[in-house]
Amino acid sequence: MNIKKASRIEIIAIGSELLTPNFQETNTLYLTQRLNDLGLEVSFKSIVGDDWGNLLSTIKEALSRAHLIIATGGLGPTQDDRTRGAFGESLNRKLIFNKELLEKIRERFRRRDLSMPAINRKQAYVIEGAEILGNKNGTAPGIWLDTSQQIVVLLPGPPHELKPMFEESIWPRLKKTCRSHVYRKVLKIASLTESKVETLISDLYPQSSHVEIATLAYPGQIEIHLVARSEKSQDQAESQVNKLEKKILERLQDNIFSSSGEELEEVVGNLLRRQKESLAVAESCTGGLLSNRLTNIPGSSDYFLQGIIAYSNQAKINSLGLQPSMLEKHGAVSFKTAEAMAKGIKNKAQADYGLGITGIAGPGGVSPQKPVGLVYVGLAWERGTEVSKNIFTGNRKNIKFQSSQKALDMLRRRLQKTQTLSLKSKK
Amino acid sequence: MNIKKASRIEIIAIGSELLTPNFQETNTLYLTQRLNDLGLEVSFKSIVGDDWGNLLSTIKEALSRAHLIIATGGLGPTQDDRTRGAFGESLNRKLIFNKELLEKIRERFRRRDLSMPAINRKQAYVIEGAEILGNKNGTAPGIWLDTSQQIVVLLPGPPHELKPMFEESIWPRLKKTCRSHVYRKVLKIASLTESKVETLISDLYPQSSHVEIATLAYPGQIEIHLVARSEKSQDQAESQVNKLEKKILERLQDNIFSSSGEELEEVVGNLLRRQKESLAVAESCTGGLLSNRLTNIPGSSDYFLQGIIAYSNQAKINSLGLQPSMLEKHGAVSFKTAEAMAKGIKNKAQADYGLGITGIAGPGGVSPQKPVGLVYVGLAWERGTEVSKNIFTGNRKNIKFQSSQKALDMLRRRLQKTQTLSLKSKK
Repeated sequence: MNIKKASRIEIIAIGSELLTPNFQETNTLYLTQRLNDLGLEVSFKSIVGDDWGNLLSTIKEALSRAHLIIATGGLGPTQDDRTRGAFGESLNRKLIFNKELLEKIRERFRRRDLSMPAINRKQAYVIEGAEILGNKNGTAPGIWLDTSQQIVVLLPGPPHELKPMFEESIWPRLKKTCRSHVYRKVLKIASLTESKVETLISDLYPQSSHVEIATLAYPGQIEIHLVARSEKSQDQAESQVNKLEKKILERLQDNIFSSSGEELEEVVGNLLRRQKESLAVAESCTGGLLSNRLTNIPGSSDYFLQGIIAYSNQAKINSLGLQPSMLEKHGAVSFKTAEAMAKGIKNKAQADYGLGITGIAGPGGVSPQKPVGLVYVGLAWERGTEVSKNIFTGNRKNIKFQSSQKALDMLRRRLQKTQTLSLKSKK
Repeated sequence: MNIKKASRIEIIAIGSELLTPNFQETNTLYLTQRLNDLGLEVSFKSIVGDDWGNLLSTIKEALSRAHLIIATGGLGPTQDDRTRGAFGESLNRKLIFNKELLEKIRERFRRRDLSMPAINRKQAYVIEGAEILGNKNGTAPGIWLDTSQQIVVLLPGPPHELKPMFEESIWPRLKKTCRSHVYRKVLKIASLTESKVETLISDLYPQSSHVEIATLAYPGQIEIHLVARSEKSQDQAESQVNKLEKKILERLQDNIFSSSGEELEEVVGNLLRRQKESLAVAESCTGGLLSNRLTNIPGSSDYFLQGIIAYSNQAKINSLGLQPSMLEKHGAVSFKTAEAMAKGIKNKAQADYGLGITGIAGPGGVSPQKPVGLVYVGLAWERGTEVSKNIFTGNRKNIKFQSSQKALDMLRRRLQKTQTLSLKSKK
């Protein structure tokens, strides 16, 4: 049977450990990645333990709705390894003892100077009509079963057994059945809300039936994911995405800071490096987050000179040269203070750009005029300054992140403006 | 309807982003943890995208087999937020417009000086017969529906909205229905490896059959999770855990920095506050991460005075008063530099403690003598200094984190020593 772009695919991860609070399951992420590489999308992921009834319920549901089912785990020799049996029963197929397979398993033990425990005999039973997939890194063989209604694949749970088996046995078989080409692009936006983005572009959705659009919202960041598939060629998928991207760009313009995967701190870093300019930052409520994000980028020492976290008024006065009278008059969380911090750090570090952030990340420090989430961000450059007033929502960490995001985005817009001006003046 | 230990529980995570290769889903882990705390086990986890047919298939299957269904995500205002509608249809219940709810959503925008986009109106529709759960951190309200056949809970996807809603609205409702007693404790360790911890305590495992033990290793942190359950009383569960904890404490002593959930930055903050002492930090390779972690703690302005991120040598000289000749002789990544940074920031900020970190987070800046991961951490206090040399492994972010962890742990040990001394001198 052929697996196509429109096929429904279900991954079932089996094992009681997967239903505990501390187990970060990664097999399904790996399988999803490889299926995506073939232009195939996963429709369902199901996670179930060793309980026989629950296992049957999950497998039967998958058999009723999916064209390709990939199950991981539960192929070991112990009592609670029930995947083979549960699939046999659900498919109404017998488990057949395979003598050659038993020999291979026994041989594996022999090579390690061990004798095979009796319980491993179980692993030599194969679902009627299935192909056996060799396992170089463990005793559990995998299974490929094409019933002509659907394809069922059983893989061992340990990642170091699953991955080589998928690459050697499953990837080539799937590759033969599907010819689809996929192109994917992610557009990232910082200073707009999800609803604003939707309002600006939602009428494009029906016009672009060849491209899937998904809008994902994080605090301080919106992402538009565009995916196109083509049975014909990679070029076709690519041009479908690019056509829609162009329309979205017309609507959102410079609100989009990245369309090739970069984070905002990378975009800003690349602009600074390209323009051979430097940055220093003065942080109050973000407390080092902005500097931390900037320095997460390898090579940031090329443009990032210095950060000062001035939490107390005293530190603002001593380290950034703010006037006590100004702080007295306007308060530490104010338009004027953000501006003075940006100018102060720019001058102190002799940088081309200075950013200053002051606000109330909460939960303390609030007054009726100054609620949690009130944040001023100042930007200073050679010929001017700019300050934004923001009211962010969320908890302390969210507010810190949104504040750092706003600061980076203000700088990005300024850098892009400078870039455009300098390109124009060169013409 | 009552949820008992034997009840089948299903968590459904909804959203197409959850079926992509890069999304590490954590809501279901959190929910599993909290359900376990009530003595409840999860039987099924299902993950499905926004496709209407797939969504219905998943929800109907859950309704056919589970007593408690908790669904997360898909409650937003956009076209691909379909959870409300799909549950309404599967349950054969209407969605009813709720005027008061719309007012609340509108008010949320108003507080931020924004007008509510028309699409958010959708969020004011409620499944017939359901209770509305308030959302302090977003516009999407949650839902609790007891059909007397089963309980259906809908929660928003963003963790900072989901968690408070679960704690405030779901936890108390579930707590009423189930009677098992659980006690859990997490012991956290910073400066030992996982194998060292295992070697020191693994012989205790068989002695403590009433308590589940799990050791989790993260870069820079090891956690020992202890869980006991009792049908009889909370006291019984608690005393089982405490008995084992006492034995572990005897083995690991002051290597354990927390046994009540606090992060290392909180422990350090509490010690500083209690001893009425202050801290300032000078960061090179950690680039603001240490300051950021310290200021993630509400009220940290009580003891955290100032941070300086001195990436360049120039900044180390100008802002921390380092001697150019010393930098020349020993290099920026050296014992002497870490010590001078700690002393420099302590004096500059007039703090009781100064921390200085200098190292190579990579991938650049490497030499044969100075590999990636080489990090010196200096601590200065009134009467002395202390420097540690470390070689951490992992990527840039991992190395930054481990460096900040080491700095905090050095300070913690010093603060606890001072505390013990001052307690002794009072006796």
